[in-house]
Amino acid sequence: MSDMKDICITMLNERGATLDDIIDIVYDLQKKYVPDLTREICNEAINRVLGKREVQNAILTGIELDVMAEKKMLSEPLQTLISSDNPLYGIDEILVLSICNVYGSIGLTNFGYVDKIKPGIIGKLDKIGKETERCYTFLDDIIGAIAAAAASSVAHNAAERNQE
Amino acid sequence: MSDMKDICITMLNERGATLDDIIDIVYDLQKKYVPDLTREICNEAINRVLGKREVQNAILTGIELDVMAEKKMLSEPLQTLISSDNPLYGIDEILVLSICNVYGSIGLTNFGYVDKIKPGIIGKLDKIGKETERCYTFLDDIIGAIAAAAASSVAHNAAERNQE
Amino acid sequence: MSDMKDICITMLNERGATLDDIIDIVYDLQKKYVPDLTREICNEAINRVLGKREVQNAILTGIELDVMAEKKMLSEPLQTLISSDNPLYGIDEILVLSICNVYGSIGLTNFGYVDKIKPGIIGKLDKIGKETERCYTFLDDIIGAIAAAAASSVAHNAAERNQE
Amino acid sequence: MSDMKDICITMLNERGATLDDIIDIVYDLQKKYVPDLTREICNEAINRVLGKREVQNAILTGIELDVMAEKKMLSEPLQTLISSDNPLYGIDEILVLSICNVYGSIGLTNFGYVDKIKPGIIGKLDKIGKETERCYTFLDDIIGAIAAAAASSVAHNAAERNQE
Repeated sequence: MSDMKDICITMLNERGATLDDIIDIVYDLQKKYVPDLTREICNEAINRVLGKREVQNAILTGIELDVMAEKKMLSEPLQTLISSDNPLYGIDEILVLSICNVYGSIGLTNFGYVDKIKPGIIGKLDKIGKETERCYTFLDDIIGAIAAAAASSVAHNAAERNQE
Repeated sequence: MSDMKDICITMLNERGATLDDIIDIVYDLQKKYVPDLTREICNEAINRVLGKREVQNAILTGIELDVMAEKKMLSEPLQTLISSDNPLYGIDEILVLSICNVYGSIGLTNFGYVDKIKPGIIGKLDKIGKETERCYTFLDDIIGAIAAAAASSVAHNAAERNQE
Repeated sequence: MSDMKDICITMLNERGATLDDIIDIVYDLQKKYVPDLTREICNEAINRVLGKREVQNAILTGIELDVMAEKKMLSEPLQTLISSDNPLYGIDEILVLSICNVYGSIGLTNFGYVDKIKPGIIGKLDKIGKETERCYTFLDDIIGAIAAAAASSVAHNAAERNQE
Repeated sequence: MSDMKDICITMLNERGATLDDIIDIVYDLQKKYVPDLTREICNEAINRVLGKREVQNAILTGIELDVMAEKKMLSEPLQTLISSDNPLYGIDEILVLSICNVYGSIGLTNFGYVDKIKPGIIGKLDKIGKETERCYTFLDDIIGAIAAAAASSVAHNAAERNQE
């Protein structure tokens, strides 16, 4: 499974998203709730999320569909739905629910927020996806979901500490 | 079922939330995506959402738990978890997932956004819940979920029109 | 959208599943609960399910991944995960949740049952998938989810009639 | 949290379900897939599930609603919906989704199966609930979901061992 994790991190890098980009999002999401938050705490949470089998499966599958769409190898009408990021095609959100849920239901609300606000790398990829031939229909949701799940893990740990 | 819908609207009113309060949220969520949006379109969408059986069940159950918590009629430790809106108690979010999902996965991201931003009546109830003996642990999520589902219905209909 | 529905029915046929196969499953699932059930009622319910956008998107995406896996066009390790129907790859179940949920939470329990029992065409496809080079990793879940959602719609309508 | 776990086990016992009853279900669900399965392995899996915060919250909330319904302390129409286990009231299934999901999507299909078959204690409680004044609308789903999640954990661990 740690091999799988490394494969996923490499795939994310090759598609344009580094762990540092994701740390930025998690840190911004949680800094106002967790006063002593550090980038290292965010990094550890992201690594816990990336270590989960269901997260790895979602990353492998979503990025494959993005890449296939860029190479125009999908059948119609799926090719057009994915390459145009059609608002009525919601499979990208469905796919990443399994990522959001790994640390309970708080992940979902963090994901919804990130998906609307499109902070940092998510906004950049969204813009490139719209203006060029690159396809990030799944990738932006994957990154948002990883960040949301990691933020939930950080929040959870902080809440547990407060109640001890 | 329309009786049930009326019962739910009455319960929402009695707990401090009017249809007008919910229209405000839906309108603000969608006005930048749907140029010809009117309050009447939002009102119709909210009524479609409130007409669904699973939405009515979630409203009845969530408000009952809020009211029981206000009257201190729940057993411990549930009484304290709900009346203090404990961040580790996520049943309120779980319960309203069935509302968010009635118009597909877009509802979830709208809900996450609203849950973070707490616009209009949601922010007001959240504040009252924290400062007084009133308990709105479920109500604020219920309102957010109704608004999110109605916003999704509005967005869906607009997207369908664009693709005809 | 009716064009999309026809495309989906054609794809299901080409992959080896007819509407009649799905009617068989829905009829068997519901006949003990709905005494006056007919195959025509099941057929109408399946058609309602297939008319939904989120169902069409799941069918297009899942069958594409099965076909790509058969043609060995996916990257590793995804190619092996899908073509071997690896039990730790749960994206097929995730993808079809959006189908199960179109008529509320009852769809999920029907899906779980069908997924375990593998009645009719589902069992046949599962066997062929295991013994030949064909890949039905997504297709068997898609058929199970369509049948489960249609069964829920039938059950829902019957329950509503009883309570009038 | 271990206090919370003990509270939950006590509540389950008081409502008529022992850990042994749940072990029976998990063992029957998994014995054909995991040849060297023991009751002790099932017991450990159930204890892992009961140690999760979201599981504890669902148990506390669902049993409270059952007990309130038995004491006829709920408002109408919720009192009648829960005490009659109305088939159109799906909040019991919604509530336990958070339990099923703690070990990924396999939990959902196990839950759907158990919910249909009603093995052991689940069938007994269902019968008592229908024939007496006792109310187990939530309890039978809670037990099914705990068993389903524990079965998924057992299956997961076995699959991981096979792939090492």
